[in-house]
Amino acid sequence: MEGISKKIYLELDAPTEEDSRSDQKRILDSLEKDGISAVMSLAVIKKLYPLCELADWKLTVSLGWDGSIWQIVDVEAGNTVCRHYGFAVDLGSTTVVTRLVDCETEECLCEVSQYNRQIAFGTDILTRIFYEKDNEAARKEIQAATVETICGNLKEIEEKTGISSCKEGIQMVISGNTTMIHFLLEMDAFCVFSTPYAVHADAPGFLRGTDIGIPIKGYVYCIPGKSNYLGGDIISGMLATQMYKGEEISAFFDIGTNGELVIGNREFLLCGAGAAGPALEGGVVHTGMRACDGAVDRVKIENGKCRCHVIGEGKAKGICGSGIVDLLAELFLNGWINIKGKFQPDKSFLIQEKEGMLCVEYEKGLYFYQDDIDEFLKTKAAAYTMVEYMFRESGISMKELGRFYVAGAFGKHVSKESAITIGLYPDMDREHLVSAGNSSLEGAQKLLLQKELLNDIEEILEKMVYVQFGAVGDFLQMMVAAQAIPHTDMERFPTVASALYTLRTGENRVQCSRRTTESRWIE
Amino acid sequence: MEGISKKIYLELDAPTEEDSRSDQKRILDSLEKDGISAVMSLAVIKKLYPLCELADWKLTVSLGWDGSIWQIVDVEAGNTVCRHYGFAVDLGSTTVVTRLVDCETEECLCEVSQYNRQIAFGTDILTRIFYEKDNEAARKEIQAATVETICGNLKEIEEKTGISSCKEGIQMVISGNTTMIHFLLEMDAFCVFSTPYAVHADAPGFLRGTDIGIPIKGYVYCIPGKSNYLGGDIISGMLATQMYKGEEISAFFDIGTNGELVIGNREFLLCGAGAAGPALEGGVVHTGMRACDGAVDRVKIENGKCRCHVIGEGKAKGICGSGIVDLLAELFLNGWINIKGKFQPDKSFLIQEKEGMLCVEYEKGLYFYQDDIDEFLKTKAAAYTMVEYMFRESGISMKELGRFYVAGAFGKHVSKESAITIGLYPDMDREHLVSAGNSSLEGAQKLLLQKELLNDIEEILEKMVYVQFGAVGDFLQMMVAAQAIPHTDMERFPTVASALYTLRTGENRVQCSRRTTESRWIE
Repeated sequence: MEGISKKIYLELDAPTEEDSRSDQKRILDSLEKDGISAVMSLAVIKKLYPLCELADWKLTVSLGWDGSIWQIVDVEAGNTVCRHYGFAVDLGSTTVVTRLVDCETEECLCEVSQYNRQIAFGTDILTRIFYEKDNEAARKEIQAATVETICGNLKEIEEKTGISSCKEGIQMVISGNTTMIHFLLEMDAFCVFSTPYAVHADAPGFLRGTDIGIPIKGYVYCIPGKSNYLGGDIISGMLATQMYKGEEISAFFDIGTNGELVIGNREFLLCGAGAAGPALEGGVVHTGMRACDGAVDRVKIENGKCRCHVIGEGKAKGICGSGIVDLLAELFLNGWINIKGKFQPDKSFLIQEKEGMLCVEYEKGLYFYQDDIDEFLKTKAAAYTMVEYMFRESGISMKELGRFYVAGAFGKHVSKESAITIGLYPDMDREHLVSAGNSSLEGAQKLLLQKELLNDIEEILEKMVYVQFGAVGDFLQMMVAAQAIPHTDMERFPTVASALYTLRTGENRVQCSRRTTESRWIE
Repeated sequence: MEGISKKIYLELDAPTEEDSRSDQKRILDSLEKDGISAVMSLAVIKKLYPLCELADWKLTVSLGWDGSIWQIVDVEAGNTVCRHYGFAVDLGSTTVVTRLVDCETEECLCEVSQYNRQIAFGTDILTRIFYEKDNEAARKEIQAATVETICGNLKEIEEKTGISSCKEGIQMVISGNTTMIHFLLEMDAFCVFSTPYAVHADAPGFLRGTDIGIPIKGYVYCIPGKSNYLGGDIISGMLATQMYKGEEISAFFDIGTNGELVIGNREFLLCGAGAAGPALEGGVVHTGMRACDGAVDRVKIENGKCRCHVIGEGKAKGICGSGIVDLLAELFLNGWINIKGKFQPDKSFLIQEKEGMLCVEYEKGLYFYQDDIDEFLKTKAAAYTMVEYMFRESGISMKELGRFYVAGAFGKHVSKESAITIGLYPDMDREHLVSAGNSSLEGAQKLLLQKELLNDIEEILEKMVYVQFGAVGDFLQMMVAAQAIPHTDMERFPTVASALYTLRTGENRVQCSRRTTESRWIE
């Protein structure tokens, strides 16, 4: 498998009066024999003497693909082929994750993450954009913060592994949404969120690392995006899941501040984005918080009591996305809320009235309010409707859905069962409901190791058809129907209906066989 | 004709919600429609906003060929296609000449020259090489001096024309010998003159101007060389004369400190280099000097007197190459020296003995000595023998020689008649003996305007066969025969024999018809 970098060991003949080819030509000719047409960077030209002689013409060249040709970006004495490294970066708006990849063994040697230093200019993207909009100096600050975060990762990797990016790193692949790429390259990102939503550059391609301040020998490739809301992180997810290659129809859902959805197979790719919303990340509920120490991330109602799992095993301070999904599912299955999500105060003494509103005390001193539920259900309805609408648009029944990939932290931490119970995910074979993990990072790593994926990216971008959700007449109507738990049309959620029946009657219904015996505490 | 840069005016549709392609894609798509596959540099990506909007999507893009693909290196508002400039540089060891070329009209708008600031590190190349050999700091100084000289030229051009290289220059082509290119790129040039004569890099290709400190938007292309002594200046001469394209067999002779010779046609190219020597430039004779103010550059003997022309019309201080060639021819035609170049004291009272040696007082107080003549004849013999030997090597009679190009200042200033009379040039139809002028610069300009010449260069390098003069047994023997004036074998110089006959007898011989009535005072 050929990646976007190469290291090749050459044993060359020393020059003689009969064969007085230049050092440069000697190297290029040798590569040409191996079928590699390359050019030599100025840095390497300067390094040839006295290196070639001292190394007795036993050399290792490092090559980086620049989008058009192989560039020789370094030359070293002796055989260093086994020290061949690259970097994959998931440039998230909150967290930046970097992997050191051994391009010989194709293994990830180290993964580190840091908060994105852009946060200094606003915790949410829009604040950052308003900070840099039409303000060149601010844009430079944000660019610098972005690069510093990546460099911080590289430094941490060097501390952990002894492998220095500037001494041994050839290429880097960065995957990030359109705003992040605009920030990285010092572009005004206001365009991402303002009509007509035409961004400045979505395919920067291969840039010299040193041009943007990233200390590697070769190039930084930013995975291109499709549109303002469908950035390189989603295209990278396509590379990770390979769903554009199969016959089976898959859906790829990245739920974060925004929700981005792609459905399709090797024949077609429909994509869209919408405000799945911060609600799902615990952003708008009264006691919502990020999934960090002190957050309730798992909830189970047993014998009339709420049992919560707290991240870090300490005192609970609030509840994060996966905790909320669990909580709602449990409240519903136990009848504490009805199909419309309304509290049934007679079902538990934990349901109280505070500040003129019903709420449940899910943990001592922590309350989940009726308006928290209402808000959350709107968001989950929006997310579900995106999927539903997209299927309708493609003329395909949701029953034909092969795999449903859920990307990101949400996909990794949220319980499948709970998410189906509340109608956030479609009711389907659990085996085919797959957490895609950090697919943005996975795709970046894949590209680092597989150059031909550059063609796949062209193919994906070509094939993708963008669907504007806002533009459709009955999207709102569909969304209202989806605000029920799990849905106004219970037929769509047979296993939820079955579970309910069991819980209420103690008997199993036939469809229940699809339900797995997943333990939400272990997952 | 397509050059290595382009300016293209685009009238693009403004983005709408229906067509929300990125600014970048909008530009690339439009170029693609014109059949141009291009990539966008980071500098341009950063410049897109707010430029595109302010310019109402009427833009001019500047493209520079990078050796593999068209790079968009600038974007400007409005139609600036008519302001499309490039630079051609002859990087000589003594003088650096730069031309500003209008790439639309293909005209040279301005030509300036300066002494190469490397001279601060040695007037001759070898001194400079010994200065920088294995001394990185010195190498950096020489590199800086080289770039400063080119930048000095660019500044002078800007002062004269108002056209700034960094604001409006796209590409630059530099033609120089192998040592000059090594100096420009901070490479140790000792390899050029030391066995096994394998240099470090002879084909640096397209380098970003800013990487080597040259303020242009795009790339600097250094014309590649064939070997240590046959540098880019000679390859550039090939482009200028196009002798590798015709059926006619031509010779190209660049006489400077070294002599470089190429003979051939579209079928073959033989090349070689040898110490034609500083003698020809007036370097080793007692009163020799460069062709500047105070140098005798033309000599005629009339009525027993030497009539000299002095550059700058002032008092003579010495004699330069063209003056020496004239002087020797006149001494010989008037019988003051014999066929072996020995003074005949009885022929003129101007022939005297000074410091135990015969000499001629060619100008009041200025003497040309017997050992000056002997030295010069050795050099002219070496030069002639290179041509003769090369023909013999190729199995072609010198009678088949179509054109004889003499490059550089020597070719421009030396009288053809005198050079033939002393046997420096072969005795041939004067119309076919052509001064190629500054063919190094001409070739660079041609390449700037004609991208397909890049293929020609590959073809030339492929076709060229290097002949080692030192390696042949009878080279020395041939050279001894060529030390006579014009040659031991007078049959080779029929028009000289005829001229001699006329002068001595007052009658014309038949061959004389070939002799032109050239005035050496006007040429």
